[in-house]
Amino acid sequence: MNIGIFLFDDVEELDAVGPYEVLTWAAGEREGFADVFTMAVTTDPVRCAKGMRIVPDYSLETAPPLDVLIVPGGVGTRELAQNAAVLDYVREQAARCRWVTSVCTGVRVLLAAGPAVGKRVTTHWGAIAEIRSSGLALEVLDDVRFVRDGNVVTAAGVSAGIDMALWLVGELGDPGFARAVQKGIEYFPAPPYSASV
Amino acid sequence: MNIGIFLFDDVEELDAVGPYEVLTWAAGEREGFADVFTMAVTTDPVRCAKGMRIVPDYSLETAPPLDVLIVPGGVGTRELAQNAAVLDYVREQAARCRWVTSVCTGVRVLLAAGPAVGKRVTTHWGAIAEIRSSGLALEVLDDVRFVRDGNVVTAAGVSAGIDMALWLVGELGDPGFARAVQKGIEYFPAPPYSASV
Repeated sequence: MNIGIFLFDDVEELDAVGPYEVLTWAAGEREGFADVFTMAVTTDPVRCAKGMRIVPDYSLETAPPLDVLIVPGGVGTRELAQNAAVLDYVREQAARCRWVTSVCTGVRVLLAAGPAVGKRVTTHWGAIAEIRSSGLALEVLDDVRFVRDGNVVTAAGVSAGIDMALWLVGELGDPGFARAVQKGIEYFPAPPYSASV
Repeated sequence: MNIGIFLFDDVEELDAVGPYEVLTWAAGEREGFADVFTMAVTTDPVRCAKGMRIVPDYSLETAPPLDVLIVPGGVGTRELAQNAAVLDYVREQAARCRWVTSVCTGVRVLLAAGPAVGKRVTTHWGAIAEIRSSGLALEVLDDVRFVRDGNVVTAAGVSAGIDMALWLVGELGDPGFARAVQKGIEYFPAPPYSASV
């Protein structure tokens, strides 16, 4: 099983690395579970939204065919969602994927390419109004960590990709395995200040 | 204020990128809050524990003097904790830092270099016994997200670095600012399977 995480300039770092950590941890725990890799338009380092430079494993031309696609968010998704070659790639891969997923504003790309059109979706709270006004989704839910509609799964902002990826591990493996991965990355969060903002 | 995150071969991806996301988000929200960067022994790309390649911003020679040091964990900390040049760097920087911190098994480096010796610390649950048996720490706490002793702050495994970094934002800024960053990265976690492992 091939799980590909799409990288691009101005991808938000944790949007990509949260699911990467969860899924590579799963791959390390259970032999044969999955190959997890990153890909981008080229294999030149991408410069993420906050400045981190990551070297993609594959270009779109060399990436193995996908069973799971993850499109992270970030300000770079505005440009990405207008790149015809990228949209073609997403459309082609999505047609054969078991799961087509996004984190945060990565849903812009799934809407522009087609897979999320007419589906129930979510996104970062700051982009809910924009995605609603696009009229492309059937419904845009807020105050949820992720939404599944058919084989399209969209997560809320940034850190919500971790929750979605754990859910994927439960679907691709089983819930007990997802709990083992959760324990492996010690994901028993306790944000230190009360969340009253 | 300079916040440096130490990268090295076999650093665990989320150990580094969790705090990086939190602290760069804070820097983006409030002008003049901090410069957040990564450094490694050289500026060659590091190959992280799960295979991601990240290009460090600075080498140890070119990195600006630090106010906050973050040493992530990962299997590479075993080797790092025996690298005399690295330990010298950590010792020198720690002497001038406002906060000296680690995530997960990064505490091995803070113990080998000195700053965490005789302190109350924590680490990944899988390394608690090892760190206790080293006898270098005053006490090794388990089942906590992070421990502060003086200006040394050590976090539990992998994802606990996110909680610790939010706490640092509250200390370096104020709690309301930390809550704004928490909302920015939409860190209201809801792991999808009950955590009974």
